[in-house]
Amino acid sequence: MTSIGIYGSNGRMGRAIATIAASEGVIVAGGGDAGSDPLPVAYAADVLVDFSTPAALESHLAAAAAARTPIVIGTTGLLNTHHALIEQAADVIPVLQTGNTSLGVTLLGVLVREAAARLGADWDIEIAEMHHRHKVDAPSGTALLLGEAAAAGRGTRLAEVRVDSRAGLVGARTEGTIGFASLRGGSVVGDHNVVFAGEGERIEIAHRADDRTIFARGAVKAAVWLAGRAPGRYAMAEVLGL
Amino acid sequence: MTSIGIYGSNGRMGRAIATIAASEGVIVAGGGDAGSDPLPVAYAADVLVDFSTPAALESHLAAAAAARTPIVIGTTGLLNTHHALIEQAADVIPVLQTGNTSLGVTLLGVLVREAAARLGADWDIEIAEMHHRHKVDAPSGTALLLGEAAAAGRGTRLAEVRVDSRAGLVGARTEGTIGFASLRGGSVVGDHNVVFAGEGERIEIAHRADDRTIFARGAVKAAVWLAGRAPGRYAMAEVLGL
Amino acid sequence: MTSIGIYGSNGRMGRAIATIAASEGVIVAGGGDAGSDPLPVAYAADVLVDFSTPAALESHLAAAAAARTPIVIGTTGLLNTHHALIEQAADVIPVLQTGNTSLGVTLLGVLVREAAARLGADWDIEIAEMHHRHKVDAPSGTALLLGEAAAAGRGTRLAEVRVDSRAGLVGARTEGTIGFASLRGGSVVGDHNVVFAGEGERIEIAHRADDRTIFARGAVKAAVWLAGRAPGRYAMAEVLGL
Amino acid sequence: MTSIGIYGSNGRMGRAIATIAASEGVIVAGGGDAGSDPLPVAYAADVLVDFSTPAALESHLAAAAAARTPIVIGTTGLLNTHHALIEQAADVIPVLQTGNTSLGVTLLGVLVREAAARLGADWDIEIAEMHHRHKVDAPSGTALLLGEAAAAGRGTRLAEVRVDSRAGLVGARTEGTIGFASLRGGSVVGDHNVVFAGEGERIEIAHRADDRTIFARGAVKAAVWLAGRAPGRYAMAEVLGL
Repeated sequence: MTSIGIYGSNGRMGRAIATIAASEGVIVAGGGDAGSDPLPVAYAADVLVDFSTPAALESHLAAAAAARTPIVIGTTGLLNTHHALIEQAADVIPVLQTGNTSLGVTLLGVLVREAAARLGADWDIEIAEMHHRHKVDAPSGTALLLGEAAAAGRGTRLAEVRVDSRAGLVGARTEGTIGFASLRGGSVVGDHNVVFAGEGERIEIAHRADDRTIFARGAVKAAVWLAGRAPGRYAMAEVLGL
Repeated sequence: MTSIGIYGSNGRMGRAIATIAASEGVIVAGGGDAGSDPLPVAYAADVLVDFSTPAALESHLAAAAAARTPIVIGTTGLLNTHHALIEQAADVIPVLQTGNTSLGVTLLGVLVREAAARLGADWDIEIAEMHHRHKVDAPSGTALLLGEAAAAGRGTRLAEVRVDSRAGLVGARTEGTIGFASLRGGSVVGDHNVVFAGEGERIEIAHRADDRTIFARGAVKAAVWLAGRAPGRYAMAEVLGL
Repeated sequence: MTSIGIYGSNGRMGRAIATIAASEGVIVAGGGDAGSDPLPVAYAADVLVDFSTPAALESHLAAAAAARTPIVIGTTGLLNTHHALIEQAADVIPVLQTGNTSLGVTLLGVLVREAAARLGADWDIEIAEMHHRHKVDAPSGTALLLGEAAAAGRGTRLAEVRVDSRAGLVGARTEGTIGFASLRGGSVVGDHNVVFAGEGERIEIAHRADDRTIFARGAVKAAVWLAGRAPGRYAMAEVLGL
Repeated sequence: MTSIGIYGSNGRMGRAIATIAASEGVIVAGGGDAGSDPLPVAYAADVLVDFSTPAALESHLAAAAAARTPIVIGTTGLLNTHHALIEQAADVIPVLQTGNTSLGVTLLGVLVREAAARLGADWDIEIAEMHHRHKVDAPSGTALLLGEAAAAGRGTRLAEVRVDSRAGLVGARTEGTIGFASLRGGSVVGDHNVVFAGEGERIEIAHRADDRTIFARGAVKAAVWLAGRAPGRYAMAEVLGL
């Protein structure tokens, strides 16, 4: 039976993961939060799950690498420096980093990539998302994940075509860009909508999370799947067989 | 240069097709409407386009078959008897029958089929559509086309799982069914939304037609593509290379 | 301190109401379900809340009237016979019957009525709703409540203009009707969308319930408000001061 | 019979206004565009309609004031300096400035103001809009108009609570703010959605413009209504009797 360790165990997602793990017979080997030593749980668990903060990620990755324990990373708001650290860690341990652990969003990524690949550059791509009022980063990690999927479908990289927001006299839209828009309010768990806007018609591919447990369930599933793998990078689509 | 004949030439779509054809250098060999003889134009044109009524379809198919002229059928509200006639005609001429000739809806069909194939039977599928107040049939031909795509993705046939409407004490939803809902009002060109509803999350794949010319453009493209093919059934996805 | 009795106490809503009541210092005097005698709790409580079934409503109303205890009725799927019984009961006790106890839907009713009153008959009104796969009646009680509001805004009665579903060759839309469409699937708590479709433009007024506790909170608020009132009919808009 | 003069007569809206005016028996006294002298048409027309650019507005207002000719202003992207000039002009001529001339959006403003007035500050307000790829300013004039309505409903001024976009580590949402999000793509005429997000529920009030003629029709209606009024500021809600 797999045992998991949870970084960010007192956060909303950390607690949800512990609940789901318990209900699915997965052992929670322990957890950690800001200020606690990440090493003991890294050694105690078969696999780690990180839903903490970007600032804490470096020490968590170091602990995971030292203990040779696989890690699922769901923390959002990551910068290029964090992605570089993740890349390094994947040389010694299995790593699965994702902006979203739900089945629905993972499938959405597949569909968005495919739509972007099949529609010409004269179809503009825009991604809107809405989350609860407490979310601190924008666009959401999931919106960026979907943007990466769209960019991949077009054979480009998101960093080169990304437009994070529009305000003021911004001028006409530049062809090939991917625009983002972030709404915040209430207790919204997470809505995402990818719009492909052509001449006279639109395609929209959307996801609505009604219940936070879908993410916890996916995170636990990913953790169980990742335990015992060879070092390297893995993706949710593999976990879910999509 | 291809010449097309238009059945239903005085209808909304018929006139739009004539306009688009003219603007794209396609010759309009003539047309016909309720009461006119369908044979002359069938002999005069390289390919026929039918946006008329189910009642007129039999004579149009007979004319097309007699003249050995390929035919694109966009008429909606077809019954099983019409589909049988189309199947027969395809023995002698190329036939492309579709509920929707736009690029967007054709791609939607591909995405819906894929999503249905990858999501388990515990994800319920519902299809909602809205059209202008003058539309006489429900669900729309496009909604049924998307329903067929969803059913195909699940390895079943739409006729076996289709639920056209819900009113009264209908009881809990039956697993595996595909539900339809039709709204009518104003001048809405055509909105379609395919909902995949799982436990705690939803995926929605939608199309909005803002301008009727997208259908006319697709119909002309299909006609030009169909001219000169071998007898048999063809699909919009082939025309558009999806 | 107010004490409430709950009919349908083992149902989803009944349990949610008990939880909210407890958290807000409202005493739960007892409850009842199919098969149990409704009289004891009617005498024991200051006010009753009914989220049971239409079939059980008659005996619940009789018990409430016998005990002179006010009653909040949130049960949906009511027929004309039930409405007549409610009207009778209101001669002797305070009664608040509503298709929805949330603040959001109650305000929606106000906005829908106003929009319907200000837009001409050339704006078509359609109401779409989506609920989880277990819901047995269609359209939802809330959709009907919104339909009543729209009809009231137009100075007509819903029963005269209501179109519950469209399937087949239904013909063009009849001016002045109000159409309903019901989707079912997954775990959707309750989405409602009222569409006003004019020539070239649309207004949509929508409500999304993300969490069932909003209804329980509103039901408890209504119960506390209703206790001690004079016999007669009351509405959620009064409870919420809208 | 009223005669109108059109500033921005070669633009999309200018041409649509001329077409509608002609179809409704309103005389087009002439027009002007960048570079042309605005005075002759100001003297020739009973009323002016301006759908030009912010840069040209000052000279158009001066011409209108000199000729004592009322003016309807639909130009968007206005700055505080433009609003000050409009205020001055209203001392000598009737002025109607609006971000949107459609019936639907004008009613939306009324509904949004009312919803904002009735919902507590714990309901967050966000406004999303989507327009075609050629639009140069963000948020749209209509989105700002709706934001003003929401702010007025809450008894505050938009300038004090406006958040134009979110990107990066922006922190949790500040209570009482009104957020904007702008999407651009394809040929979208104009979609607006005002979201009120509370705990566990959301209200959305949306408008979709399917056809640009609704704006031209409203502008012509406003012009005819404004001709012959006393100097001062007027609003679309008055024109439409809302």
